[in-house]
Amino acid sequence: MSSHPLEELLHPRSIAVVGASAADGRGGGFVAALQGLGYKGKIYPVNPKYSEIMGMKTYPSVKDIPGVVDYVISSIPASQVLSMIGDCSQKDVKVIHLFTARFSETGRKDAAELEQEILRQARKGGIRLIGPNCMGVYYPAEGISFSDIMPKESGPAGLISQSGMAVGQIVGLAAQRGIRFSKAISYGNALDFNECDYLEYFTQDPETKIILMYIEGVRDGRRFFKSLRKATSTKPVVIVKGGRGESGTRATASHTASLAGSMRVFETLVSQAGAISAQNLEELVDIACAFYFLPPVAGWRVGVAGGSGGGSVLAADQCEEAGLDVIPLPNEIREELKSKGVLIWDWISNPADMSIRTDRDFDTGDMLEMMARNPKFDFLIAFMGVPFRGWQGKKRPRISVDKHLERYRLKELNNKPLLVVLDDRGWGDGDNYIRKVMAQMKTKLIEAKIPFFPDIGRAAGAASKVVDYYTRRK
Amino acid sequence: MSSHPLEELLHPRSIAVVGASAADGRGGGFVAALQGLGYKGKIYPVNPKYSEIMGMKTYPSVKDIPGVVDYVISSIPASQVLSMIGDCSQKDVKVIHLFTARFSETGRKDAAELEQEILRQARKGGIRLIGPNCMGVYYPAEGISFSDIMPKESGPAGLISQSGMAVGQIVGLAAQRGIRFSKAISYGNALDFNECDYLEYFTQDPETKIILMYIEGVRDGRRFFKSLRKATSTKPVVIVKGGRGESGTRATASHTASLAGSMRVFETLVSQAGAISAQNLEELVDIACAFYFLPPVAGWRVGVAGGSGGGSVLAADQCEEAGLDVIPLPNEIREELKSKGVLIWDWISNPADMSIRTDRDFDTGDMLEMMARNPKFDFLIAFMGVPFRGWQGKKRPRISVDKHLERYRLKELNNKPLLVVLDDRGWGDGDNYIRKVMAQMKTKLIEAKIPFFPDIGRAAGAASKVVDYYTRRK
Repeated sequence: MSSHPLEELLHPRSIAVVGASAADGRGGGFVAALQGLGYKGKIYPVNPKYSEIMGMKTYPSVKDIPGVVDYVISSIPASQVLSMIGDCSQKDVKVIHLFTARFSETGRKDAAELEQEILRQARKGGIRLIGPNCMGVYYPAEGISFSDIMPKESGPAGLISQSGMAVGQIVGLAAQRGIRFSKAISYGNALDFNECDYLEYFTQDPETKIILMYIEGVRDGRRFFKSLRKATSTKPVVIVKGGRGESGTRATASHTASLAGSMRVFETLVSQAGAISAQNLEELVDIACAFYFLPPVAGWRVGVAGGSGGGSVLAADQCEEAGLDVIPLPNEIREELKSKGVLIWDWISNPADMSIRTDRDFDTGDMLEMMARNPKFDFLIAFMGVPFRGWQGKKRPRISVDKHLERYRLKELNNKPLLVVLDDRGWGDGDNYIRKVMAQMKTKLIEAKIPFFPDIGRAAGAASKVVDYYTRRK
Repeated sequence: MSSHPLEELLHPRSIAVVGASAADGRGGGFVAALQGLGYKGKIYPVNPKYSEIMGMKTYPSVKDIPGVVDYVISSIPASQVLSMIGDCSQKDVKVIHLFTARFSETGRKDAAELEQEILRQARKGGIRLIGPNCMGVYYPAEGISFSDIMPKESGPAGLISQSGMAVGQIVGLAAQRGIRFSKAISYGNALDFNECDYLEYFTQDPETKIILMYIEGVRDGRRFFKSLRKATSTKPVVIVKGGRGESGTRATASHTASLAGSMRVFETLVSQAGAISAQNLEELVDIACAFYFLPPVAGWRVGVAGGSGGGSVLAADQCEEAGLDVIPLPNEIREELKSKGVLIWDWISNPADMSIRTDRDFDTGDMLEMMARNPKFDFLIAFMGVPFRGWQGKKRPRISVDKHLERYRLKELNNKPLLVVLDDRGWGDGDNYIRKVMAQMKTKLIEAKIPFFPDIGRAAGAASKVVDYYTRRK
């Protein structure tokens, strides 16, 4: 158990939801979320208008709750927060998550002053604050969440996000790739705990092996650099910065009252601290996916197999543009192909275009297996499609997804790092076959702990960040 | 009817498939494709080993076919092509599509010499050649295709591709976005007709309103520049170049025997000719989608609505990075919001973050409608999700897809160009609800002729190419 102040706060014996309402509303959403994710402690809905919410006794105020209250979620209007803090300090509440918004992010002076007064009163009462203007904590192992449709399973990815909606988006995108989270914290205006506190917490958190961040502004650049450098010495940190340009900076001000600052300064800071920049949430999840599933990668030399024709040409281009080293096919492999009587032994290259082979016994899996055995390759990228369903509109695949995957010989790749490009194009939205089989393929790849990507550019981009991280650490 | 030599060749009275085999094989594939796409002329399978293929009489050689043969698809080995050309010239065949490969792309001297001899013999016999080493023609209105799973419907996109597999990929990706093709031609080693011939054909083709190209090498840069400049004066041309770097250039040599040439020279040529470069097939389809559905766009000023929190901040960043002008919210709109009593009138901005609004009567559709009315915006981007299905794991959406779409007031946007970002994240592969509803949303958007994109970066990127094209033409 760590000594970081957040550690105790994130294991509350009870949670009160102040401003809870009918199950459909926002406050009700928090009660439903805690119930849905299976929070084990006591849940206390608080609202003077109701006596019961979702079958649970509801209290007029925090003061009226009979038992211990460790953690409070505030879903009441900004104007009522100060009075609630008074109640909370009487009840020895340890932390308040202020979902409540309309403070400094409005740009109004009185709202910003109220925010500061809240901080003063909380400190006086010995209460820590998460937020305001944020969705707060998603901690599946504890059953803490702001929504009941978040995954219940845990995993080693940790997420720090100034935006709550970004938490939903990132966790959602990541779920489709098999990534699960230790915890995700959205912190909005960062009135008390700020980005550095959260980063330091995740750095020492044994449940977190990779840290993802969405950040709009940094209050103390010097401290952030120090925290970030310490974090990256232990685990990879991937950061998306929101508010990079003029209009984005305007948007951060009204979103979380952040001063976005100079993008160039920020990028330099991130890079010098050894962290990884991503441009958007999709790229963040791609990089997370590569770190999440890949073993350390020793170098830049990539073997690509399974593409065809123009796809192989563009694969070569995009790998090279991402900084990867698409080496020519090693002679040993060519000789082996020749000795096995593969007809295209003198034609095939890297990327290995498999589209015109006439050898029935020679498949992408054989090529991958040979590349995996060859020490000249540091890692591999394989193109995979869905099992072919035959000509003439026959709607059934010739072979099962399991048999199809066996042809790639994934178990014989001797732990050489492998990324998969899943070509899930269909012929229109009516094509449920592709959608269904692709979902099965994804599930199987996730079970096999293999990262997959929607196209070669995104696979190569993620791979390059991973190689850069591991080769710099050597 | 145009006078371009390809025009007549693409309307053959009959097609012979030489090397046709059982329906499962490659030659059988062509016969099945022509039948499947509904080719109206005579289909003659040719193969001395069979007397019947797919219920059709099969001839030992082209010479044995009783009727007229205008068009031949060659699916026989390279070594047998010369003899077949002799037969074809006796039958007054007009054009041969050489699916047959293993010529100059092998890098072997004898194979390259055979290729040249084929050209000489074809010229002697008055026969034109498509290919070799390519999938040939997809022309849905005529029922010509190389695969029976291609869409049967036509549309105004034309595709010229050196790679046949790229045709499959591009048509497949495009189909999911509602794009249909006038015709697509893959031309491989470009032995007779080359990229300039095809480009000139599509330029004058009234069935084609936008030209897409995948190209690996250009034989005659001067002619290509001239053809391209003429094409772009009539319709937009979007080009992906394969073979940009060292390894990609190696790959083009073995793929289509192309000399990829200097990428910088090529990019300059494309840009000076007024054509549009795309980096990969996904971007090609994004740009195609924007041109396909959008009316001309007058300028760079974009209004963005419907995103939330961090998503709006990153939307602003990515629009700006794509060169768009994310103007502040015009005062007229702010005043109108105030007069309507919308609580967040002084807070909301552009992008319009709709996540924390408390006004039940004020929705993304209202914002879009106001932006559409305001002349300061040249075009709009809207974020759309699926209909919310409610808390507590209720699996049914509260409202239908139709009702959900109505809320965006698409019909009241007065033809202001609109791009949609469809957020189709789900919570893992088991989430069929998202998949199904998203498919319905896509179908409806396609019917409404609205282009949609998987993320804001791709929408903004495609928009910027479209704005650039139309503003340059003014």
